[in-house]
Amino acid sequence: METITSRENAKIKYACAVRDSEKQRAADGLFFAEGPKLCLELAKSCTPRAMYATAAALAKTPELAQFDPAEIAPHVAEKLSGTKSNQGVFALFETPVPPADTLDTARRILMLEGVQDPGNVGTLLRSAAAFGFDAVVLGPGCASPLSPKTLRSSMGAAGRLPTLHSDDLPAALAALRARGVTTLATALYRSRPLDEAGNDFPGGLCVVIGSEGQGLTDRTVEACDMAVRIPMTDRVESLNAAVAGSVLLWHFRGV
Amino acid sequence: METITSRENAKIKYACAVRDSEKQRAADGLFFAEGPKLCLELAKSCTPRAMYATAAALAKTPELAQFDPAEIAPHVAEKLSGTKSNQGVFALFETPVPPADTLDTARRILMLEGVQDPGNVGTLLRSAAAFGFDAVVLGPGCASPLSPKTLRSSMGAAGRLPTLHSDDLPAALAALRARGVTTLATALYRSRPLDEAGNDFPGGLCVVIGSEGQGLTDRTVEACDMAVRIPMTDRVESLNAAVAGSVLLWHFRGV
Repeated sequence: METITSRENAKIKYACAVRDSEKQRAADGLFFAEGPKLCLELAKSCTPRAMYATAAALAKTPELAQFDPAEIAPHVAEKLSGTKSNQGVFALFETPVPPADTLDTARRILMLEGVQDPGNVGTLLRSAAAFGFDAVVLGPGCASPLSPKTLRSSMGAAGRLPTLHSDDLPAALAALRARGVTTLATALYRSRPLDEAGNDFPGGLCVVIGSEGQGLTDRTVEACDMAVRIPMTDRVESLNAAVAGSVLLWHFRGV
Repeated sequence: METITSRENAKIKYACAVRDSEKQRAADGLFFAEGPKLCLELAKSCTPRAMYATAAALAKTPELAQFDPAEIAPHVAEKLSGTKSNQGVFALFETPVPPADTLDTARRILMLEGVQDPGNVGTLLRSAAAFGFDAVVLGPGCASPLSPKTLRSSMGAAGRLPTLHSDDLPAALAALRARGVTTLATALYRSRPLDEAGNDFPGGLCVVIGSEGQGLTDRTVEACDMAVRIPMTDRVESLNAAVAGSVLLWHFRGV
């Protein structure tokens, strides 16, 4: 097997473009992942299109061989990673396409609006998968679910949870309500404590979460059945956004 | 009022030493905080020893004037912040000293072991304060609760929650059990689902959380009454550490 030794190799440059550009990812239906653990985890639910690994990485994680990785020199791994302290494993995966009827059938849906921080988006995807949510809808202003930073936080959950985009959350919420899904906005003010939302949602449940600083837009809150908040002591002003969202997902895990 | 214009000013150099060195913080009983919002929040529960602000920052947040900040030039603010995009407000606060009987009286205690990431420690302090915990015990290997990164995540909660250090968590757990506190270790394996822990802890509760990668040491798990885990689907291997801990704190908020 020939080792890729040039940082200018066309395949390597292409992988970097997929890594860096949401546009490239969307156009080609591919995303880029780094690290042996993450790549093996993603491979359980996504189809790998190409894999690159250093000889040292392949020796350390022999099960990567099943994906027939192209061998790369350490300085090529540095280019792919952007850091010297990388683990020498990189892959391009096909972006999973959610079934067309996802929003018509999902029973527990997480919806995000304006969650810009990739770490928060990734952590929320991971919690949603852990607590049995069926689908995620990303509204305007959210970090890409398949950027390298988001993938690092989601630890591969993005591959296992149908994830859709919507430019018009109020319209998406109206469609969910029309088929009997209860829609809950989260808001610090003009909202009721979580417990008052009950735990009986025969038509399904959609939880809508905004950013830590801005919260949800008025239009989105008004499009929901109810606004809820997590009761807190007066010792803090707010919770970390990913924590607040995850507590909600946990709270509604059994509905 | 004279403006501090030299980056070599002795007070500025001292503030940087407190910012960077846990040893300096411990020796002098002070810690360093950055940002108008955080400094105002901390001032509600901690005594400010010195405050530094640029003219622009003071104009933007006039309520800082009550702390009689020394005016600093923008390039001095850059030195204190380490970044150009700082908000021009810095303070040294006295480290709060927990009451001597904290562990003899606290009813809800969070204990951390080996949580190295300052963001996770800060987020957990914030969640503990939000959900009514009384005290935090930091065991070996934890990030400092008063480092700049931890403060950023805790958003001032560190000032409102008695925080102690312990080099011997099994001994601390034995002392808590001796006075009737139920001690729960969190562990992914050889543990029971959270619900089985019940919700009746007449003598109080201590929840012990380890790092995401390593978990708790065997000695610490063995020193507890029970090991619990958060039930999850098989779609993820684990949760983010701060999320997992916060879900536990939320779960036991009312006990």
